[in-house]
Amino acid sequence: MHYTDENIAAMRASISLEGVYAARKRIADFLKPTQLLRHPLLDEALGMPLWVKHENHLPTGAFKIRGGYNYMAQLDDEERKIGVISATRGNHGQSIALAARDFGVRAVIAVPEGNNPEKNAAIRAFGAELVEHGKDYDEAREYCSELMEREGLRYIHSGNEPDLIHGVGTYSLEILEELPQIDTIVIPIGGGSAICGAITVLRALKPEVRIVGVQAANADCVYQSWKVGHAIENESADTFADGLATRVTMALPLSMILDEVDDIITVTEEEIRSAAKLILETTHNLAEGAAAASIAAVRKERDALEGRCVATVLSGGNIDQQTLKWVMEAI
Amino acid sequence: MHYTDENIAAMRASISLEGVYAARKRIADFLKPTQLLRHPLLDEALGMPLWVKHENHLPTGAFKIRGGYNYMAQLDDEERKIGVISATRGNHGQSIALAARDFGVRAVIAVPEGNNPEKNAAIRAFGAELVEHGKDYDEAREYCSELMEREGLRYIHSGNEPDLIHGVGTYSLEILEELPQIDTIVIPIGGGSAICGAITVLRALKPEVRIVGVQAANADCVYQSWKVGHAIENESADTFADGLATRVTMALPLSMILDEVDDIITVTEEEIRSAAKLILETTHNLAEGAAAASIAAVRKERDALEGRCVATVLSGGNIDQQTLKWVMEAI
Repeated sequence: MHYTDENIAAMRASISLEGVYAARKRIADFLKPTQLLRHPLLDEALGMPLWVKHENHLPTGAFKIRGGYNYMAQLDDEERKIGVISATRGNHGQSIALAARDFGVRAVIAVPEGNNPEKNAAIRAFGAELVEHGKDYDEAREYCSELMEREGLRYIHSGNEPDLIHGVGTYSLEILEELPQIDTIVIPIGGGSAICGAITVLRALKPEVRIVGVQAANADCVYQSWKVGHAIENESADTFADGLATRVTMALPLSMILDEVDDIITVTEEEIRSAAKLILETTHNLAEGAAAASIAAVRKERDALEGRCVATVLSGGNIDQQTLKWVMEAI
Repeated sequence: MHYTDENIAAMRASISLEGVYAARKRIADFLKPTQLLRHPLLDEALGMPLWVKHENHLPTGAFKIRGGYNYMAQLDDEERKIGVISATRGNHGQSIALAARDFGVRAVIAVPEGNNPEKNAAIRAFGAELVEHGKDYDEAREYCSELMEREGLRYIHSGNEPDLIHGVGTYSLEILEELPQIDTIVIPIGGGSAICGAITVLRALKPEVRIVGVQAANADCVYQSWKVGHAIENESADTFADGLATRVTMALPLSMILDEVDDIITVTEEEIRSAAKLILETTHNLAEGAAAASIAAVRKERDALEGRCVATVLSGGNIDQQTLKWVMEAI
């Protein structure tokens, strides 16, 4: 769980387009390609055409499962016997839980206390052992060290894992193959694995595509880091978009983001909420905060995107009922 | 628009598994196969495993689009110039509108007055000309005759069309290929085209599969007809599940249903509402009434389904915001 600059540099050197192609083969038995759709009423509301990649349609309701299967498929028999451990706010944990179950691997998932109960229930329903500890994601993550040492489990970091980046990179590959004319992709950044997947695919196959990240203004450690060119840690990550609620950057994704991302947009809680409502009304999909943030960013940058071929990702649909009600009451 | 017994018999004779295979080839350029998922929290709540075919993930948010593309792909140049007309409560109209747009065909869609405004907006957004007329679906349908004669348009019936049945049959084919061990399929019946697609596929490839239809107790003309063996017309079709709100049976689907369906379950408005809430909470998908009815039927028949391999279809997700709020307030 402690990474040196050399560790990170070696990991980064191991990330490649070939890794994404290999991941696609590994996950094909478990996951169908997702829909890339235009929604006419959403286009009308935005005043521009937008391609939406529906990762919310996947098992677990989020893109992370692509990484989970790619990771678990590469464990050998010995490693499968030992079991894995990870920390999460939700989607990463569901991904590890489901992929572990399908490969017969024991999975322990640590979440912060007070974590979204619907996400906790889903992680348990996929067969993982759930442990609640710490006041936020980063504390839950630190607690994993202890458990890892005590139980000898293999730790899966949610960001510093080339196999997860290769796995989630497959959605960017699907987008590019279906929409070769794409010139802008907009991707929410929590830990950053998704946008690193996009970087890996697009910089290899169509380097001129503009790669735009999105963060919550209330949890903007990657944005702040990107502005100054090195890691900045925040004191809090107070956003309802739990997929974006990281206050500490992750070394591997950040190193790629600093070098390769063209822009990062930040959006307020009210902008995210309003976008979630818009998605619900115009597409009849649930968008969790991270996914809504991405559409909120497109809406905010509409003028700058004039005439461009833009795709974004509805990264997940795992919104709890209380938050959904609050979203529906937005103006 | 007037069908003789001979018309219907000839249509029925033209429906075949080969027609479904041909449809699959025609629509492959437009539609990806949809997800067939197990949702652990839904399984827990139901107390049984259930495979859910996610037709709500398709463009237009409902299974009908499979028929729309299959129909439009077979028009010749002359027919495309003339244009088409159809009547709908929503999903059929969205399907015809989108498929017509993609083939450059003029489409006129008649809906009853007071029809769901979100569905109307969607039909318009796909580029169709919307006409509001009559107090319910059947009156809107009758009005199409006039328009058809006046404007020389080609009428597309939402039920008496082998090409629509072949098109929507492709989802049953996808289910069977992915889940060859299936022994029960549960499908909501509005007009009946979807279950006729299932009949066509399953009776040819795995005839022992139990085919179970679902109707709203408040709009049960097909159920009543099936009980007595001939067409029964109701006075009303008062269900919030607009995809099920037919009060008059359709000759072609009914003739197949009378011969081939093993059972039909009816569910109350409150059972449908409660199931829609369950789907929202456990799968994070929106289920319109017709789709929720199907899950409600599974829930109701849980004991009879013990030990069986059951698949159902989340046929559409087009629920309006007001109805969604009401669903979320269910107990």
